[in-house]
Amino acid sequence: MITRYELKKRVKRLHSSMEKKGINSFLISNPRNVEYLTGRDTGRILLTKDKDFLWVKELYLDIYSDLYSSSGYPFDVEVYEKNSIKRKIKRSRIRKLAVENLNFLDYDKLKKELGINLVVTDLVEKQRAIKSRYEIESLRRSAHIAMKGMKKAFEVVREGVREMDALSEIEYEIRKRGSESPPFESGMLLASGKNSANIHARASWMRIKKGSLVVVDLGARYNGYFSDMTRTIEVGKINAEKRKIMEYVREIQDETIDRIEVGVKAEDIHNFVEREMEKRGYRFYHSTGHGIGLKVHELPNIGPESGDILKDGMVFTIEPGIYIPEKFGVRFEDMILLKRNRVEILTR
Amino acid sequence: MITRYELKKRVKRLHSSMEKKGINSFLISNPRNVEYLTGRDTGRILLTKDKDFLWVKELYLDIYSDLYSSSGYPFDVEVYEKNSIKRKIKRSRIRKLAVENLNFLDYDKLKKELGINLVVTDLVEKQRAIKSRYEIESLRRSAHIAMKGMKKAFEVVREGVREMDALSEIEYEIRKRGSESPPFESGMLLASGKNSANIHARASWMRIKKGSLVVVDLGARYNGYFSDMTRTIEVGKINAEKRKIMEYVREIQDETIDRIEVGVKAEDIHNFVEREMEKRGYRFYHSTGHGIGLKVHELPNIGPESGDILKDGMVFTIEPGIYIPEKFGVRFEDMILLKRNRVEILTR
Repeated sequence: MITRYELKKRVKRLHSSMEKKGINSFLISNPRNVEYLTGRDTGRILLTKDKDFLWVKELYLDIYSDLYSSSGYPFDVEVYEKNSIKRKIKRSRIRKLAVENLNFLDYDKLKKELGINLVVTDLVEKQRAIKSRYEIESLRRSAHIAMKGMKKAFEVVREGVREMDALSEIEYEIRKRGSESPPFESGMLLASGKNSANIHARASWMRIKKGSLVVVDLGARYNGYFSDMTRTIEVGKINAEKRKIMEYVREIQDETIDRIEVGVKAEDIHNFVEREMEKRGYRFYHSTGHGIGLKVHELPNIGPESGDILKDGMVFTIEPGIYIPEKFGVRFEDMILLKRNRVEILTR
Repeated sequence: MITRYELKKRVKRLHSSMEKKGINSFLISNPRNVEYLTGRDTGRILLTKDKDFLWVKELYLDIYSDLYSSSGYPFDVEVYEKNSIKRKIKRSRIRKLAVENLNFLDYDKLKKELGINLVVTDLVEKQRAIKSRYEIESLRRSAHIAMKGMKKAFEVVREGVREMDALSEIEYEIRKRGSESPPFESGMLLASGKNSANIHARASWMRIKKGSLVVVDLGARYNGYFSDMTRTIEVGKINAEKRKIMEYVREIQDETIDRIEVGVKAEDIHNFVEREMEKRGYRFYHSTGHGIGLKVHELPNIGPESGDILKDGMVFTIEPGIYIPEKFGVRFEDMILLKRNRVEILTR
């Protein structure tokens, strides 16, 4: 369980980056950002120079009273009533308010209702990209559950087994091992035969064939933190083309991981993968990787024109893949922790 | 599988509602809206007076070539390259462009790049609220899988069983029965004892106790269409307070379903539930229900200040619940189809 101490550190760090940006007040409503700062994924936050407020529905005030009323909890917790936040903002004479990247209609409504300047900022998302010890430990345990699921995948993916049957067994294992949710947002990916060339494939009732490749992309969730890994499983003896591409993707993944260090531009990592594939005569159809934490996809973005820089404490995936439409696909994906400028692979 | 005919009908209906609103051009990028109109959840759409375009990555042009190149497919399919959409918009001399409710930064960027007026509209979401025969059939089959899962829940929820173990068995059943994804976005909800009072509870390793209530909220997915249902299961003999509230919630649900007809305001349905609960001395902490389709939550919103009107062809949930913090909770949820002004319950 998360401690008040951990939460206080997070809120303090956020205040200090707000100060650097000249932001005095910040309204936070994205459930993952709220979870990150309060320990629970409900409510809305207003950070101000003097005080930090959390509004939650009455029901949650009761349910989470142990946490909310504990000494040292970093928020003044109040019952959410209609307009309670707007009243507070008006009373506090806030002139400029930072908000998250809201959808246009919510942004527009808020701006009109408050009649003040809004500044869109991703300060919380940026902070979430740098993981604390507690977060790294949670990600490690989440990756551990994912690896148990992958072990099961290597057992059940066999000639003649239907994709959906294999998938059910693997997700079952992941849940039995304590994952707080099924893999990702719509379940794991298991794609055999020519389906493996489809990045978005949905598992079918098709039987897995001898000599085919099966892409298995799965993960788990622990303390709210997701994990994500992919293996391509050989079923029986594969042909020379498949063998060659399996080797290419593995080589490229290893060489890419070797280039990871603090200060490197994320887009340079991605461009490297693209170049290496082109050298071998293939195109790269997706991004190289993504940060992972309270969301499956978060900062940093290891993709083209990313703008992100690799920093100490980041956890992200490296997942090159080569796809031959109508034939097969190969992907390998691991979660990388960059800590004290050393690389640790959490999913091996 | 979805037919070209079904897709053509959808695109045509959208054009006619665009015309009514005076919209000539519409850029669509939300994956669920893209899936609704194209049959695949990838790419971007530009609808114009003369022609409708779909841009997809080269990989998908190959993978989905059967569909995309079939005669009568309602889009001109092109390979997505950087700026290809912007070029088309500029060349077509579009002065006013409809867009979905994008996030603020994307909206702002698009507006600056194009230098034309953007109008935010929910025309696709509104159309998706009214289900076609194909959609109703898909929802029916999705609900059927959910019911199989619920049957399993009534078997495995027993005194002494750990919440996570029961949950794993139920999700396993749902997947084995062919659900295209695990229930909802983060798995099903199974909450016993005082956890059942928490609408967002996550299953734990706690054992289910005799005399307790267990809220089981689950669903499935078929042809992309979600289902959603909740039952509260009694474990052994329950006390009089629990018995009373079980009866209250069932009564309120039945009476609410009785009030459903074409033309009724969704918020009136919600206000009725709220009033009925207050009459009995309880507060209602969430909305009464939500439309369901390619997303678990879509239009109509059966909640306070909704503004939606119940129409023929809508499918939505009715899910009253009473929660006693620190003690227990009760919720019953069913999927309702409103067709030819008759109510059909898809989850019974």
